[in-house]
Amino acid sequence: MAEWKIIYDSWKPGEQPLREALCTLGNGYFATRGAAEESNADLNITYPGTYLAGGFNRLVSKVSGKDIENEDLVNWPNWLPLTFRHKGEEQWFNLEHVELIHFRQELDMRRGLLIRQLHFRDAISRETHITCRRFVSMANPHVAALEWEFMAQNWSGEIEVKSALDGHVTNSGVARYRALASQHLEPLATGQHDEETIFLHTQTTQSRIRMAQAARTRVFIEPPSSDFQRETNTADNAYAEQLLRLTCQQQHPLRIEKVVMLYTSRDFAVSEELLDACTNIGRLGSFAQLLQEHCQTWQHMWARCDLELASNHNAQRILRLHIFHLLQTVSGNTVGLDVGVPARGLHGEAYRGHIFWDELFIFPFLNLRLPELTRELLMYRYRRLPEARYAAHQAGYRGAMFPWQSGSNGREESQVIHLNPESGNWLPDNTFLQRHISAAVAYNVWQYYQTTTDLEFLSFYGAEMILDIAQFWSSIATFNTGLDRYEILHVVGPDEYHTEYPDLDEPGLRNNAYTNVMAAWVIRCALGIAKVLDNKRLDELYEKLHISEDDRQRWLDITHTMHVPFIGSSRIIAQFEGYDALKEFDWPTYQKKHGESMRLDRILEGEGDNVNRYKASKQADVIMLFYLFSAEELLGLFNSLGYTLTEKDIADNIDYYEHRTSHGSTLSKIVHSWVLARSDRKRSWSNFLEALMSDVKDVQGGTTQEGIHLGAMAGTVDLLQRGYIGLDIRDDVLWLNPALPAELSYLKLQLLYRSHWLTLRLTHQKLMINVEKGFAREVQIGVNGKVYTMVTGDKHEFEIG
Amino acid sequence: MAEWKIIYDSWKPGEQPLREALCTLGNGYFATRGAAEESNADLNITYPGTYLAGGFNRLVSKVSGKDIENEDLVNWPNWLPLTFRHKGEEQWFNLEHVELIHFRQELDMRRGLLIRQLHFRDAISRETHITCRRFVSMANPHVAALEWEFMAQNWSGEIEVKSALDGHVTNSGVARYRALASQHLEPLATGQHDEETIFLHTQTTQSRIRMAQAARTRVFIEPPSSDFQRETNTADNAYAEQLLRLTCQQQHPLRIEKVVMLYTSRDFAVSEELLDACTNIGRLGSFAQLLQEHCQTWQHMWARCDLELASNHNAQRILRLHIFHLLQTVSGNTVGLDVGVPARGLHGEAYRGHIFWDELFIFPFLNLRLPELTRELLMYRYRRLPEARYAAHQAGYRGAMFPWQSGSNGREESQVIHLNPESGNWLPDNTFLQRHISAAVAYNVWQYYQTTTDLEFLSFYGAEMILDIAQFWSSIATFNTGLDRYEILHVVGPDEYHTEYPDLDEPGLRNNAYTNVMAAWVIRCALGIAKVLDNKRLDELYEKLHISEDDRQRWLDITHTMHVPFIGSSRIIAQFEGYDALKEFDWPTYQKKHGESMRLDRILEGEGDNVNRYKASKQADVIMLFYLFSAEELLGLFNSLGYTLTEKDIADNIDYYEHRTSHGSTLSKIVHSWVLARSDRKRSWSNFLEALMSDVKDVQGGTTQEGIHLGAMAGTVDLLQRGYIGLDIRDDVLWLNPALPAELSYLKLQLLYRSHWLTLRLTHQKLMINVEKGFAREVQIGVNGKVYTMVTGDKHEFEIG
Repeated sequence: MAEWKIIYDSWKPGEQPLREALCTLGNGYFATRGAAEESNADLNITYPGTYLAGGFNRLVSKVSGKDIENEDLVNWPNWLPLTFRHKGEEQWFNLEHVELIHFRQELDMRRGLLIRQLHFRDAISRETHITCRRFVSMANPHVAALEWEFMAQNWSGEIEVKSALDGHVTNSGVARYRALASQHLEPLATGQHDEETIFLHTQTTQSRIRMAQAARTRVFIEPPSSDFQRETNTADNAYAEQLLRLTCQQQHPLRIEKVVMLYTSRDFAVSEELLDACTNIGRLGSFAQLLQEHCQTWQHMWARCDLELASNHNAQRILRLHIFHLLQTVSGNTVGLDVGVPARGLHGEAYRGHIFWDELFIFPFLNLRLPELTRELLMYRYRRLPEARYAAHQAGYRGAMFPWQSGSNGREESQVIHLNPESGNWLPDNTFLQRHISAAVAYNVWQYYQTTTDLEFLSFYGAEMILDIAQFWSSIATFNTGLDRYEILHVVGPDEYHTEYPDLDEPGLRNNAYTNVMAAWVIRCALGIAKVLDNKRLDELYEKLHISEDDRQRWLDITHTMHVPFIGSSRIIAQFEGYDALKEFDWPTYQKKHGESMRLDRILEGEGDNVNRYKASKQADVIMLFYLFSAEELLGLFNSLGYTLTEKDIADNIDYYEHRTSHGSTLSKIVHSWVLARSDRKRSWSNFLEALMSDVKDVQGGTTQEGIHLGAMAGTVDLLQRGYIGLDIRDDVLWLNPALPAELSYLKLQLLYRSHWLTLRLTHQKLMINVEKGFAREVQIGVNGKVYTMVTGDKHEFEIG
Repeated sequence: MAEWKIIYDSWKPGEQPLREALCTLGNGYFATRGAAEESNADLNITYPGTYLAGGFNRLVSKVSGKDIENEDLVNWPNWLPLTFRHKGEEQWFNLEHVELIHFRQELDMRRGLLIRQLHFRDAISRETHITCRRFVSMANPHVAALEWEFMAQNWSGEIEVKSALDGHVTNSGVARYRALASQHLEPLATGQHDEETIFLHTQTTQSRIRMAQAARTRVFIEPPSSDFQRETNTADNAYAEQLLRLTCQQQHPLRIEKVVMLYTSRDFAVSEELLDACTNIGRLGSFAQLLQEHCQTWQHMWARCDLELASNHNAQRILRLHIFHLLQTVSGNTVGLDVGVPARGLHGEAYRGHIFWDELFIFPFLNLRLPELTRELLMYRYRRLPEARYAAHQAGYRGAMFPWQSGSNGREESQVIHLNPESGNWLPDNTFLQRHISAAVAYNVWQYYQTTTDLEFLSFYGAEMILDIAQFWSSIATFNTGLDRYEILHVVGPDEYHTEYPDLDEPGLRNNAYTNVMAAWVIRCALGIAKVLDNKRLDELYEKLHISEDDRQRWLDITHTMHVPFIGSSRIIAQFEGYDALKEFDWPTYQKKHGESMRLDRILEGEGDNVNRYKASKQADVIMLFYLFSAEELLGLFNSLGYTLTEKDIADNIDYYEHRTSHGSTLSKIVHSWVLARSDRKRSWSNFLEALMSDVKDVQGGTTQEGIHLGAMAGTVDLLQRGYIGLDIRDDVLWLNPALPAELSYLKLQLLYRSHWLTLRLTHQKLMINVEKGFAREVQIGVNGKVYTMVTGDKHEFEIG
């Protein structure tokens, strides 16, 4: 079972527990906070709502392992505090003041359970053993629970247990944000609901989301003892506690259960959050019952989402950790909460909970297992269409322009200046010019439809997004009579090292290849919508979105004449117009000094130089095209634009940029590994392993502590699924084109494709496909270039390699 | 255009404007309030949240025509108040104090616009003409707007215009509720946002939903005059107003625009409601622009939802009024708001906004035009599954038992006592024993799936509801060894006149036929789910819902051996066991005295008698079966239960109950008309006309003023669609079996069936089917017993009759 567990069996006082940062034990419910932001009107800086939940915010930021950090562990976890002291002692239990005989922390990913065992000896030689188990329920989005098994090893005596709800919690997980407002809760009330239950009622400071927590604490003493007193203190309106005084008998176990319910004023199907929290906690079963339901739900999630592989053990375990984090962030519990996919999951406070384009890397996984979650997350974008339209309008464009960074109401939240910690300088930040995110939204809609054929979604919501985004691309494109082609100016591509021309005063670049090709693709997709939607709906949308016949003619033109810059007369796509003129960068010197994943922008700025001057990318940019599209589709796309590109050219392009990228983004390794899956399996595998390790080893140097990189985590899974299995959905066929690297001898996964569950088993020699029993529609599956029609119950085996 | 308008061209002081009650001009957005209830903890009586919106609640209850009632009109509409007075006058404009020269109120259903023209002469012979136009935007759920064109006919002078937001509004639209708490808003703040904009911030008293309104008032004077002053008063924290002082020139028009935005703390994609209201109102265009967008959206809605018919004009107009009310209650603007379908729509306060089973009559309309709305409304039920499970558990059953009446959090909200206004007595109310509502929920899920084949919804949500409801029916059923059959005890059927046996002390009946047959149907449906869902999901659900092999065996047994009582040895289904022994009722005597639609329960209780003693139904009960199922399906269902029933028996049953029903429910006429559509077209048509008139003529005697009957309204549309066209979806075939009554010579409608838009045109001789251009999947359509495969662009014509 080792591949299911993340285990640490030692701890030292003061230790910075990076490795602990990998244990998240929230669940998607808490993503509700991601939807709300906390704006600091004075600074015009936006804080995340990710951790609004107070007390429970610690389910995210504290259970993430930081609860074993410094004072937090010492004073025992701050979230849902539960601690003890001996009678007559002033200080509560402090791990730094005892001698640790045994320590073991185990994150059981299969069950979504965190277990911590402590065996310690105090100053007067009393030995105590505590096993703590805790979970945030996957079965009931409102429930979290923790349990202590407490055993006095060599003593008997009276102890005092404290069980509390703490509304004084702050968002202070990221060091450089601490100077900013970090108190996001204002207290409303505390109180006692019944003998066993206290409550805390708070409200977020800016968005004024109310949150009610009720905590029920029960004690089970063996043998049952009447020597038990409970005292409740609710004088502080941000902190409620119960003190339980009881007598421990040597070698007799004592068990404490703390069960907490959380409701917010934005929850569905509630009357009033405090009323519901207090009413419903009375209906909950024991810790054991709640755990059983929780484990069952996780079991069902894993049955859909697990990937089994035969490689070294660690790869299996880390992949599961990645899937685990993904399901902690989005799950059935986030449905209906109007939340997006935050870049750091629900694990850390970096990026302040903002929504970027990470979903682009996450949806391929969800589409094929839990498509309903993609649907929900696409609705998050759909609801922000009015804001995206306003943004386009304000920028002088038509259609819908989605923001690069966004929060609750969908406006642009990108910073306008940012700090270079290397130099201490505040610099202008033009990353908001990453207009390409709108293309990602449209791409995601289309991929969801391709995987599910959910025509109802496409008709009611999805098509509107694609058409409105196409309109945006059409309007931002300008016709260059010199080139006799359309071009797109004043944008920034995915590579954040290049945001301007060093010799020009204005931000933005001309003709970023990725942006231009994506724009052409979106517009082509929008034109293709006409073949999928019924006329009635199409006419409705054309009218609503003011898309005229002339507009569509312009669209058609753009799909044939969008400009793509190349380097000189080669077939190497230029990252943007003028890239060719940039200097080659002295990689060896800098890599030697700063390591593989250096942040060149900061380093060079610190040296008075400017990364914009060099052929050096932070992350995949051109290469993203090869990640998002199969070679067949991409070559077709270039062809229709009037450019001839071959499979060989793709390999050359990959090679070219592979040598000019610093991988200053965790996503970058994924993309490069992916695109190498066919051209260079060996290099692909080593890239994959690096991507796999990026959070586990914190390759970005400290950023993991501020929150895992969810897009990269999901990307590693996608790499196995799409990269090595060569999965691609085209023309109503699910294409499989396997190419396992040498190091991966076996891969098994399940896919939900157009309502069919398929089980794929892959070795270097064989691909086995089982069409599970179920819905009886036929599906077309293409293997090695040939299409097969498969129906429920079918089993197929193919020789490959 | 007369068929698109509801016009009144006279008004008299003090007139009770029943007819006005037919003009609702809200829109679904405001249904958000339906989701929240206001509980009065002292009385344990629950109030509706339907009208929580203050100011805007009047969009519902005041624009409903009640704004022309008594003091409301006299003081000009209370909601979003806008009024005027001449300089130096103390009193604001009062319709009772002027001489009306011309009055015309027009509800333009096609555009969703209410227009009111007033021409009046005051005490000193000043003549003024005002045209008021108002709408609640269908294009933007947060917007309402009104406009005045004000013309001084024979005078010039200074006037003062008052534009306000009023948080003092109450829920007092239903006379008998007025003694209950009617103030549901507590003020938070008022203020001025900019020169033109004031705001009101309030919070509902129990559910504490915050609501922010911002109102922008602009004046356009011809010729432009600088003689214009604006004064803002926000001293009252529940009432904000602007006073505009300006000079009118004789025969020069003056135009006033008031645009209001409303946001609540439960809205999606907002940061904080007041912030968003004030920010976003600044982005809105003029009244004319907002109206244009609003009208366009209505045009699109009508293109989907209109039915054209050749009959007398009034039927066409009233049908449109019914569709109009339906779309006022649920529309794209209600998506994501977690709201159900309130029995009185958003028109009146009766039933306190509670959710009953009206959706059963509404979904057949939505499924075939706006299926996404059904999906949303089914999600309302899905989110309340945990509460339904708790209810089942509390009552000693397994599975999920939905409440007969419910509000925000899905608990049972049925009253436990009710007042008989006839006798003044408070009587026990056992209508909560209408367990059959759970069958309706399952039925609705299945019908939605049948119409759309939305397998994703079925898999993620729908199947769970059907299975859990089947488990409930299985557990409430008990095996009667004497009968050698399963039976269901202690329930009440749809007919609310029969809630107990007069000689027994306990509430409930044995073996209500409707309930038993529906239970058997649900269980059969649940067993059938296994053929539709994939094994993986099925196993997940069985495990989650604790459905064992044994359970399913019991289910199978029940589908063959559920007891259905019959009257004696006849093939007349007994409404419930023991119905046979009840006395026949003296209909002629009572009908003569009390009219056709009498409330026999109240009348007899007032006479010291008990309606439970008689063969007298308030509404369709057994007959509901013939409404919900085609003859083919129903006879099959009885057959599998071991009962032989023929088409002739159906007619006999209808005839039997048709003579024993008082139609004390507006839904009843619909059902009876529907089931007669084949057996007795003449009687069906007269029943249809009565149903059509039920709100327009307030056939229940005063209940329409308290709110229209949405289920009955939707039912009239369904009657045309399913009853007279004989539409039935079975075995993946859309069956059409037209039978127009003599009085209806032509019928045209559009249907969205499994992603295909079909246009049907029907006369007595011919049925024309156009498969509109669009998605290219084939559909099977059965006409007169023969199945045709149709594809995009097909046109077919069939001889009928």
